[in-house]
Amino acid sequence: MAKQKVLLLGATGETGSSILNGLQESGNFDIEVLVRPASVNKPSVQKIQEQGIKTRCIDINESSDLVSVLSGIDILISAIGPHDLLQQKKLLQAAKSAGIKRIVPCAFITVAPPHGAMLLRDEKEEIYNDIKFLGIPYTIIDVGFWYQISFPSLPSGKIDYASLMPNNIIHDDGTAPNLLTDLRDVGRFVARIVCDDRTLNKYVYTYGDILSENEIYLIAEELSGEILKPTPMSNKQIEDAVAQAKTALSQDPQDPMKRISVYKSQYQHSKYVRKDNGPAYADYLGYLNARTLYPEFTPISFREYFAEVLAGKGKKPYASS
Amino acid sequence: MAKQKVLLLGATGETGSSILNGLQESGNFDIEVLVRPASVNKPSVQKIQEQGIKTRCIDINESSDLVSVLSGIDILISAIGPHDLLQQKKLLQAAKSAGIKRIVPCAFITVAPPHGAMLLRDEKEEIYNDIKFLGIPYTIIDVGFWYQISFPSLPSGKIDYASLMPNNIIHDDGTAPNLLTDLRDVGRFVARIVCDDRTLNKYVYTYGDILSENEIYLIAEELSGEILKPTPMSNKQIEDAVAQAKTALSQDPQDPMKRISVYKSQYQHSKYVRKDNGPAYADYLGYLNARTLYPEFTPISFREYFAEVLAGKGKKPYASS
Repeated sequence: MAKQKVLLLGATGETGSSILNGLQESGNFDIEVLVRPASVNKPSVQKIQEQGIKTRCIDINESSDLVSVLSGIDILISAIGPHDLLQQKKLLQAAKSAGIKRIVPCAFITVAPPHGAMLLRDEKEEIYNDIKFLGIPYTIIDVGFWYQISFPSLPSGKIDYASLMPNNIIHDDGTAPNLLTDLRDVGRFVARIVCDDRTLNKYVYTYGDILSENEIYLIAEELSGEILKPTPMSNKQIEDAVAQAKTALSQDPQDPMKRISVYKSQYQHSKYVRKDNGPAYADYLGYLNARTLYPEFTPISFREYFAEVLAGKGKKPYASS
Repeated sequence: MAKQKVLLLGATGETGSSILNGLQESGNFDIEVLVRPASVNKPSVQKIQEQGIKTRCIDINESSDLVSVLSGIDILISAIGPHDLLQQKKLLQAAKSAGIKRIVPCAFITVAPPHGAMLLRDEKEEIYNDIKFLGIPYTIIDVGFWYQISFPSLPSGKIDYASLMPNNIIHDDGTAPNLLTDLRDVGRFVARIVCDDRTLNKYVYTYGDILSENEIYLIAEELSGEILKPTPMSNKQIEDAVAQAKTALSQDPQDPMKRISVYKSQYQHSKYVRKDNGPAYADYLGYLNARTLYPEFTPISFREYFAEVLAGKGKKPYASS
């Protein structure tokens, strides 16, 4: 069977890099990467080109002929950044006209309500609605939260090198179960999901482990031998943080850092107060479970990941681009 | 097994009456009807009471204790009118607190995109999103278009008595297939769907027949022996009608008649230009097919319905309330 032709957007980001690796590992795809003219000379793009991956250089906001750009592509995967989500709109009519067989819009977040709980999710819903309006075959893939941003700091400080923002907060009573996926497994799941007929026009969630913060802390103590002293954060504090972040953003709607603060506080609210990011709510929302679909694939466990971090082999997300 | 307790809103409307009949016919439900204080003395409400059906008299906009009103109810079905859709919001938190086992919000229209094609559908989506936000078990039931508003007038005028607005328009080339359900079967489908575990947290579409306008006209000519002279309406004319209706509504947003004009023109656009209201798009959107779920139930065919109308046994919708 001929390899399916995949075009990937956002290949140099954290999620995009994982997807690129996953697609390459699988060997099932003929991969091309869409690159902005402004990014062509970035080291991250050159690294991709050095791997022999073809790049298509296009500014999706400027191009007058996106249909040609997308022609011949079977699967369009977008891992575009959170500030550029709505740019995907420009691609959709072209994707339909070009006869794309499946679009995978930028999802890759926690399981959350389609509207009203997270600004980031609300914007994604706009894209999903546009896809459904056009009737383009699609798959939505959400991955929960990454292991890489789900571990506590240790009193010794020895794993802070791998932490985006070291902290040892426990939200509410620490019992909310959360879908967690190793960032490196995101692409391995994606490579399976995007060539699977069962996932066409469906939502799919992935996870390596489903853990509460209390369970994460127990694993961290057991593997490190250190005693953690968690800082509790009440639901009220989480709600206040959301309200403050929203107020700040409303005063300065174009500030990307203020937008990120809203995203972050709403993630916490959704994960720990609403307790959205678990299998029960995903099932309710109609998601398929990737672990049930691919029983032969064993993702990295949180325990394995944390042992790597303890051994100094972790990598801080967003450290290079 | 104890009968499930159903509370029905909008029982005196066209859809609501059909649902009430369907629930009664099935014998599986302990039925109560929610009635506004302003409607208590209407003949249509008194007719319901005379059938021995319990009514709960509540203004959902005023009641301070909707949780008590909804307590003990297993299934809440809403067939509220199109102008009152957003009033359902007030019921949702109460439905959750009361532990309702399934909510069936007011859907009961054609299959259409969740957003952007029909104002009526967009408002329904708001309610569906609120339901999902709250995590209330739900079923969305869409029925396509009714036979009762899908037949052409005859040159003799002999069936105009049963027609809401006699016309013999053929939209575009008349080939778009449409899901059609006899209004009387809506409730029969609903009675099956709402007590079926397979339909929990799912969308379901019903139909008695799937017919294009050309096929409908052929049946009408064959059964009546008359020769129809259809008036063609181009896609451009349909699009213009939508634009005009929208402009009129924007100038007078509170005018219910102008709102209805938008609904009507957008129905035509969705059914005949976009061709949404067919099984392929319903499948794409993730709907279950009620005919596949209930193969033992034979709904009324369009042919049977039209023969009744020819025999003088039709009934104009919205003729009494």
